[in-house]
Amino acid sequence: MPKYKLTYFNFTARAEPIRFLLSYLNEDFEENRFEREQWPTIKPSMPFGQVPVLEVDGKLLNQSVAICRYLAKKASLAGEDEWESLLIDIAVDNIFEIRQDIMKNFHEPDGEVKIKKKELLVKETIPFYIERFEKIVSENGGYFVNGKLSWADLYFVSILDHIKVVTNVDMVDGCTNLSKLKQTVLNIPQIQSWIAKRPGPIF
Amino acid sequence: MPKYKLTYFNFTARAEPIRFLLSYLNEDFEENRFEREQWPTIKPSMPFGQVPVLEVDGKLLNQSVAICRYLAKKASLAGEDEWESLLIDIAVDNIFEIRQDIMKNFHEPDGEVKIKKKELLVKETIPFYIERFEKIVSENGGYFVNGKLSWADLYFVSILDHIKVVTNVDMVDGCTNLSKLKQTVLNIPQIQSWIAKRPGPIF
Repeated sequence: MPKYKLTYFNFTARAEPIRFLLSYLNEDFEENRFEREQWPTIKPSMPFGQVPVLEVDGKLLNQSVAICRYLAKKASLAGEDEWESLLIDIAVDNIFEIRQDIMKNFHEPDGEVKIKKKELLVKETIPFYIERFEKIVSENGGYFVNGKLSWADLYFVSILDHIKVVTNVDMVDGCTNLSKLKQTVLNIPQIQSWIAKRPGPIF
Repeated sequence: MPKYKLTYFNFTARAEPIRFLLSYLNEDFEENRFEREQWPTIKPSMPFGQVPVLEVDGKLLNQSVAICRYLAKKASLAGEDEWESLLIDIAVDNIFEIRQDIMKNFHEPDGEVKIKKKELLVKETIPFYIERFEKIVSENGGYFVNGKLSWADLYFVSILDHIKVVTNVDMVDGCTNLSKLKQTVLNIPQIQSWIAKRPGPIF
């Protein structure tokens, strides 16, 4: 019986970093994937009305970044000491921050506001973050932190397709170091195997 | 010489959880407080153009939650095992999430959009989170996690005044368990002493 049961929509988005980490760990996790029209009936049973939710030993856990950190510790991808863990946490929170900005815009109900803010996002905010990410990875031997693979790298690569679908921006386009990092992560056998078999559309 | 130098506006807001934790640790930290009109000249030198930034041994660190987690580990407030750390991280991210929603609304440049969304926030979103926080603390012996003080409790209490100023909502009002938790944290001698001496307005 799998120890982990992941409840999320039948697409990548916010669950994909968790799926990357579970795959990296070679965990045989169960997926409770649902379609958009099922969400209203599922939402009330989720803590804080959100997904992804990971069920571990019967306990329902929300907050994807916290879940990823927990799994990353098991995978020895969360830093060798407290200082390194801090640098990894900062990198993840920087990535999470721009992801949140993008998704807030995507879910903006007012069409006019959405278009206006999306322009600012695509022209200024996203490039601002990309420039900094590229510099950080160039200064850290091809990874976000200290020249070695961490869950910040997995987190970043796991959301690239999603961001491209939502914004039409390829965050590694024209960035030598980010492009290489993407390839490094996609070359990890467990990630390759996950991507080859994963069901559902990329979103 | 203090090991820590904290750069932030001359008010509470996003820096206060860090100040609570540094105070809890009895750290003699240096504060680089500035006024709103100085921000445009400081902003470009900050990683990702944001504050608070904590300088540790000459390294500039952004992302307040990651910084708090690092300090919380030093204070033994970050969980006794990985499962407990996960539950604390989830609690903090839930608190951070509603805080972010509140601040996104506060910084909304379109006055009409701001008012419309604030109503939804105050009438629905904030009460939704408060109800869950009160239940969690009631089920966990007066704390957010496992019946003992963690940095989730310090984080929560450190932002209450700020949220009240911004939204006019007292998040512990009418909530027996949250009110008690607030008092528990405010009774910690280091926190009492910090609040008695802290400069700058509450915001």
